[in-house]
Amino acid sequence: MPTLVDPGASRKEKSNAKKASVLKGVPERFLHPELSCSDSDPATVLDAPTSLLSSDELEITSLDAVQIVNAIARGTYTSVQVLDAFTHRACIAHRLLNCCLEFRYQDARAEAEPLDGYFQVTGKTKGPMHGLPISVKDQCRIIGTETTYGFMCQVGVRDTENCTLVNALMGAGAVIFVKTNLSIGCLWGETINNIIGHTSNPFNRSFSCGGSSGGEGALLGNEIVESVVGPMSHSPQSLELFTKSAVDSQPWLHDPKCHPIPWRGTEFTDIISGRPLRIGIMLWDGCVFPQPPIRRAIRELEVKLRHAGHEIIPWKLDHHERWNYWAFTSDARGDFDRTMAKSGEPDLGLSFRPNQRPLTILEAWELAMKRVDFQASVLEQWNETGTNNTHPLDAYISPVNPSVAPMHGNYKHIRYLGYTGTVNLLNFTACTVPVTFVKPDIDLTDQPNGCLDAAGNPIPPPASELDRNIRENYKPDRFEGLPVTVQIVGRRLEEKLLGIAQVIQKLLKA
Amino acid sequence: MPTLVDPGASRKEKSNAKKASVLKGVPERFLHPELSCSDSDPATVLDAPTSLLSSDELEITSLDAVQIVNAIARGTYTSVQVLDAFTHRACIAHRLLNCCLEFRYQDARAEAEPLDGYFQVTGKTKGPMHGLPISVKDQCRIIGTETTYGFMCQVGVRDTENCTLVNALMGAGAVIFVKTNLSIGCLWGETINNIIGHTSNPFNRSFSCGGSSGGEGALLGNEIVESVVGPMSHSPQSLELFTKSAVDSQPWLHDPKCHPIPWRGTEFTDIISGRPLRIGIMLWDGCVFPQPPIRRAIRELEVKLRHAGHEIIPWKLDHHERWNYWAFTSDARGDFDRTMAKSGEPDLGLSFRPNQRPLTILEAWELAMKRVDFQASVLEQWNETGTNNTHPLDAYISPVNPSVAPMHGNYKHIRYLGYTGTVNLLNFTACTVPVTFVKPDIDLTDQPNGCLDAAGNPIPPPASELDRNIRENYKPDRFEGLPVTVQIVGRRLEEKLLGIAQVIQKLLKA
Repeated sequence: MPTLVDPGASRKEKSNAKKASVLKGVPERFLHPELSCSDSDPATVLDAPTSLLSSDELEITSLDAVQIVNAIARGTYTSVQVLDAFTHRACIAHRLLNCCLEFRYQDARAEAEPLDGYFQVTGKTKGPMHGLPISVKDQCRIIGTETTYGFMCQVGVRDTENCTLVNALMGAGAVIFVKTNLSIGCLWGETINNIIGHTSNPFNRSFSCGGSSGGEGALLGNEIVESVVGPMSHSPQSLELFTKSAVDSQPWLHDPKCHPIPWRGTEFTDIISGRPLRIGIMLWDGCVFPQPPIRRAIRELEVKLRHAGHEIIPWKLDHHERWNYWAFTSDARGDFDRTMAKSGEPDLGLSFRPNQRPLTILEAWELAMKRVDFQASVLEQWNETGTNNTHPLDAYISPVNPSVAPMHGNYKHIRYLGYTGTVNLLNFTACTVPVTFVKPDIDLTDQPNGCLDAAGNPIPPPASELDRNIRENYKPDRFEGLPVTVQIVGRRLEEKLLGIAQVIQKLLKA
Repeated sequence: MPTLVDPGASRKEKSNAKKASVLKGVPERFLHPELSCSDSDPATVLDAPTSLLSSDELEITSLDAVQIVNAIARGTYTSVQVLDAFTHRACIAHRLLNCCLEFRYQDARAEAEPLDGYFQVTGKTKGPMHGLPISVKDQCRIIGTETTYGFMCQVGVRDTENCTLVNALMGAGAVIFVKTNLSIGCLWGETINNIIGHTSNPFNRSFSCGGSSGGEGALLGNEIVESVVGPMSHSPQSLELFTKSAVDSQPWLHDPKCHPIPWRGTEFTDIISGRPLRIGIMLWDGCVFPQPPIRRAIRELEVKLRHAGHEIIPWKLDHHERWNYWAFTSDARGDFDRTMAKSGEPDLGLSFRPNQRPLTILEAWELAMKRVDFQASVLEQWNETGTNNTHPLDAYISPVNPSVAPMHGNYKHIRYLGYTGTVNLLNFTACTVPVTFVKPDIDLTDQPNGCLDAAGNPIPPPASELDRNIRENYKPDRFEGLPVTVQIVGRRLEEKLLGIAQVIQKLLKA
């Protein structure tokens, strides 16, 4: 059931109406008005669902996507049961974290019921995602919903068609049940906008859940991902199901930006068959040193990879100002500003305005050429890790961000895009995986001028003011219990990366 | 052996030195100084090689790429013999047509000899193109050669590395023996520049060979192709060998602009297995009506396709001003002008300067969005030709250009990019095939206000001044004997198009 916001309303009215409408159409028993948001309470809310969900609901929402699809196909649960369980859990998350922009319960229910009917009559499922509830970031168009990208001016504007991805998911039998919060224009590392405000981190609500996809992240409750386009899930197997289903739907027949590349099963099987992998490790990029728990996460993962027989190769990319090539700086934020101006919404202090005039077309082309040169040089660097007898790197591991997570409003002081922006710049494939949690007794603060850290590993001197700020921003006690992630990065369009994620997850669970 | 042009020389000196150096290093017996260029003699020069080549050379140069590779692999000819035969023939073509910018005979010979040595010792060939002579347009970098793109300022600048394509071809065993002429900046439909002047059409030297790849076209002597990047050959089987070898070399490991898509053999086999194809026919685009021989070529091909059991579907794309989205207009020719200014070379009256200022980045982005919308709408139009029981179009056939060919200097009056530019805009796959020749007794001039043409088919009234000019430009007697081509167009990155070209070539030969 779509929200009901008058497009002609004032900004404040729109915001209030939108906030009030997020849960519209959701059954009352899921609403839990006794729960409330916080942006200062450091206590975890991860256990909140335990006392509020039924045992069946807890069981269902603990399954990964593959398990859910299998359970429905066995007749253990119906699509409607699964939809209800996830809706209930997402309502609780939204009450506590402010992570959703629009539940579409009534529509989702109207889609799930015929799936159950079909299964009852035929004993078969419709598509590889039959009955699987999926949430999408509020940049995916779905008929009847608003798609805001975080901009106020989009509130009240209903989609009249689905985007290609939504069609692919629905075609595979998935039930999209909620649209999640995101930062204005998907361009900020905290999930914050003028529509419903900011989203908190379920591990510690005084922190942001990151961004731009923070609504997704908070709903899942176990990772902080800065993603461009891509799935998020607790399990790599679910990511595989999602990606394979999306590829198998042949999206290139509808979306001119999708490449006609079928799912390459052999490359995937090759990885999960157990062959030794060759993994590059980039502890830091020479520009901004990651905070202690992130370094520990990388070192621990490196040890586990070595013990399992995988080969570790030192790896370093030159990030120095590379992310300045990012196209979003090239128009001096003009597109962003213009869209905000449509509703007159305030700036919120997202301080990424570059001090420059927009580039001319020729300058933009020169920048694009530099980008291609950089891409080509990294490909050669990658090729050089192989010899006649060995294939080159399968992937490299690096920090996602040099900071564990931003406290609310603090992101602008610790903003550094080198690790993720370079992956965007290269058009490479990346998968973020949670490795550990912040442990204040191990992950001690670095001494400002120390040459060794608490674990006895060498520390370089700060390379810049930002590097120094980010080091000083880490506070073991305040960060306690926050999840620590790393990213696995492969070359362009490599589904084998999902296989590597599975290998690594197994190692981490062992 | 590279040319020897002093980079500090004056423009005129450079041009003269370059002209004098084109054939440098080529054995004297291939030079034929008695032959000379013309840009007004209408007589065909296609038969010139017959009296100048040995019977072995004629035999070798009549083979297609697959036959050459097989003949070398059987030991019928050596790589050096084949190189010499093609060099000899290309020298004759250059003397008559001015189609080459740089022979690299000595280097090519030094590459061919070890191939023969390897074959003699092992009885095996090195790669799928072992000993195959290939010419490349002068936009492909080869160590030691100049790569001009048609710009004077590039004369005297030697390449220090090969481009990815050249590495792929050499890696497959090909011997690149000559670099062919092209228009300034590859942006004009006649092959003309300030370096060596213009290239003539071997069917009738008062005509241009087209462009921008005209040097290639003149060297082959049987087709007029306006290509962006792609192979040209007499036989579709050779195109298949080229494309498959290029794909199998995995160019995406080195070139960030190549997509990691393996050769999809099953899609190709599916086409040449003989199944009925579904072919769209677009006789014209509603903007510029093609000249009579081109309409006849399309109608004749349509009849042959129907008789062979293939299905014909009416097809029309809206070309109206679509090609104005082309990026090369978006900087108001700034990049082009800047490169020409480096050497101070004159403009040559290539009149594609748009009357506009360069676009801003935001305007360029809006244009890019419009382009994506257009691409998406064409994909949907394409999908709609299929139903539950039938797959959609395999390809469509349309004119390449509404004009048969431009006379020298005449191109600016008949310049219309709708048919080819739209294919570029869509990033679609296209293959141009020669269908027939201009026959003045059948291909009569259209009556200016007639509603039927000489064959009794309806003629629409001129849609614009350009449409009228192009109709009036056709002169049956003057155009006699010129080849008439059409293009087959498939969606993005579809190698199956090469299979369709093979099917069509068989029909045309039957």
